[in-house]
Amino acid sequence: MWQDLFARSVASGAGNEITAILSQAGDDRIIAFSGGYPHPDTFPRKALEQSFSRVVADPAALQYAPTAGLPGLRDWFTGWLGEHDGLRPAEDEFIITSGGMEGLKLLTACLLDPGDRVLVEGPTFMGAIMAIQSAMGVIEAVPMDSGGLDVDALERVLSSSPSAKFLYVIPDYQNPMGVSLSAERRHALIALARRHGLLIIEDVAYRELGYDGDRRPSLRTLGPDVVAQLGTFSKTFSPGLRMGWISAPAPLVAALSGAKQFTDQCTGALGQLLLEDYGRSGGFDDGIAASRAFYRRRREAMLSALDAHLPEWVRFTRPEGGFFSWLTVPDAIDTLTLAERALADGITFVPGGIFYPGDRGAHELRLAFSKVPEEKIDEGIVRLGKILSNFDRKGQ
Amino acid sequence: MWQDLFARSVASGAGNEITAILSQAGDDRIIAFSGGYPHPDTFPRKALEQSFSRVVADPAALQYAPTAGLPGLRDWFTGWLGEHDGLRPAEDEFIITSGGMEGLKLLTACLLDPGDRVLVEGPTFMGAIMAIQSAMGVIEAVPMDSGGLDVDALERVLSSSPSAKFLYVIPDYQNPMGVSLSAERRHALIALARRHGLLIIEDVAYRELGYDGDRRPSLRTLGPDVVAQLGTFSKTFSPGLRMGWISAPAPLVAALSGAKQFTDQCTGALGQLLLEDYGRSGGFDDGIAASRAFYRRRREAMLSALDAHLPEWVRFTRPEGGFFSWLTVPDAIDTLTLAERALADGITFVPGGIFYPGDRGAHELRLAFSKVPEEKIDEGIVRLGKILSNFDRKGQ
Repeated sequence: MWQDLFARSVASGAGNEITAILSQAGDDRIIAFSGGYPHPDTFPRKALEQSFSRVVADPAALQYAPTAGLPGLRDWFTGWLGEHDGLRPAEDEFIITSGGMEGLKLLTACLLDPGDRVLVEGPTFMGAIMAIQSAMGVIEAVPMDSGGLDVDALERVLSSSPSAKFLYVIPDYQNPMGVSLSAERRHALIALARRHGLLIIEDVAYRELGYDGDRRPSLRTLGPDVVAQLGTFSKTFSPGLRMGWISAPAPLVAALSGAKQFTDQCTGALGQLLLEDYGRSGGFDDGIAASRAFYRRRREAMLSALDAHLPEWVRFTRPEGGFFSWLTVPDAIDTLTLAERALADGITFVPGGIFYPGDRGAHELRLAFSKVPEEKIDEGIVRLGKILSNFDRKGQ
Repeated sequence: MWQDLFARSVASGAGNEITAILSQAGDDRIIAFSGGYPHPDTFPRKALEQSFSRVVADPAALQYAPTAGLPGLRDWFTGWLGEHDGLRPAEDEFIITSGGMEGLKLLTACLLDPGDRVLVEGPTFMGAIMAIQSAMGVIEAVPMDSGGLDVDALERVLSSSPSAKFLYVIPDYQNPMGVSLSAERRHALIALARRHGLLIIEDVAYRELGYDGDRRPSLRTLGPDVVAQLGTFSKTFSPGLRMGWISAPAPLVAALSGAKQFTDQCTGALGQLLLEDYGRSGGFDDGIAASRAFYRRRREAMLSALDAHLPEWVRFTRPEGGFFSWLTVPDAIDTLTLAERALADGITFVPGGIFYPGDRGAHELRLAFSKVPEEKIDEGIVRLGKILSNFDRKGQ
């Protein structure tokens, strides 16, 4: 009976890969470079303890919230965005979501009919691939390099083939490559989007976690007419409260609000009030500064280990922020096979194929340094270097 | 640009009605019988204050949770269901959701392709109508009476027309009618579902809020092979933490878990731990007992007022639980017009049309007594009685 009842999108089996990776990452016996989780030491446990009694006394704390978010949180955070990125979203250009993933779901629900074409970076966040595929969208990946999305390549794609509903891009400390879109390319991308009437979805999941002080303009600031910005508080507050936002042109935000009434109706009021309190008390800014210092140390440990222990024929990115370095191995080595061997030796990473819509990525892999204990990073990379060296370059 | 980009489901404009009603319900100057909200006095503010420090110290509290929910909450609540309804869901038959609405969204996402047929009670929860319509499902309403869904009418529908993907039903203290499905009909419904291979989605939103002591078997207990149970903790804990569940056959739960990775990835861990603590400490059971006593008083006040102040030609249901009474007025009176006149006189209710997929409900309306201050119920119904009496039966 059951197989006959399912919608077509279920038959694709999307989601199994993520489940497998999340379950793998929970095992404490292995050194897990696989899960792109924030580290618990960055969570505001003490601030929450101190503010809880105050916050829960608010009559709004335990009731349904307005679908677009509570006014106080909206006021604080749109002001914060205005201060830090130079563009304060207007009342009708902003919605609070239940995390970045819900934001992505709302966007795909409002924008995609089955068969619609979508452009992404290749490689990109696998959750985006899955969300687009579950909405029956058809994905094309545009190449990247150390300067982020190859905007010239994008222009060739736009000129030669049918129109896409949107381009999904992660300009800052990209997942999975760890690279950032150069300032020059940001301006070129916005100009290109305007010329082609292309909507850009800018995912700023890691934007506040820059370790080298270079904050580039957000795409939303450069092109508010053609960009929807998708954000999450999972890396700057906590994933345990499911909070994110979308800042976008008003007609799109109106559609997102309508759609959100049929996902979870509203984001939890208690979490919204806790976040507002954290923000207004200065905890949010202090927390970001502390997180940058915390993850910068891990980034240093990771890059030192990669420099010291990998065979010279392995290439890797040098992230200026975020959680990831991206490795490219010789064509003879399949990273799916490599991952199995690595797991047997007690380390995990994510093989590259999962970050592409099609068959690419077989000779790439993602390492996350955000949640690995600092003192284990070196040991883990020593093991990875040995496994790689034991493969000769022909992949045996 | 924007109108061209939207998915077809957005063009339907679903959601505007709910937004309008939610905004109306927030105005303190009017006596609002419109919003079906739980009353803040039933929220576990004190229990949360007492447990917060303990709960937030759990390493899982602020991190991503497993998509199907944290093990501790799952263990406690499946045990609770086993104790109270005689059927403990197995490990693979249960998932924690971010409220009932998300559960409904997951179910429609997994079960409906555009054009698929769905059966509902007429009238039914407007959120269900909207969720099904946003998944491009085609809805048919089956008649109800004081004994709940008319199962004979359902049998005629099933015999005479193409197969439906599922039947959505609220057996206990139904929204909006306030009636319950009789025990006899529950057995008949399960037998019918088995004969026709019909999947039933049983929404138990108000099940724990019975005021007269008569607990009927859940449909899920009677037919675990053909029933998915959709629940919410918004009425027994708090809507401010977005928590619900689905108990269903294993293949469906597996599909729901896959789909949830692209709604919000997981339900907030902090809320899950707070609820588990509330449950294991006995607060959940005490809270339900207190809520029953609290809402029972309001139900008494509402029924006394309806008996005393309405013209004798208005019919209304006498709910044994839940939040609602359903009024039927003569055909000459249009309840949409009546609602406008009522708002001018400082009271609100929801006109019946919104609870049907098609054009029906013009002479019906829903009164919610859950959140109106007890001392204002009588005054509000006095006003409603006058407005109705001022209409003569021809609707002038």
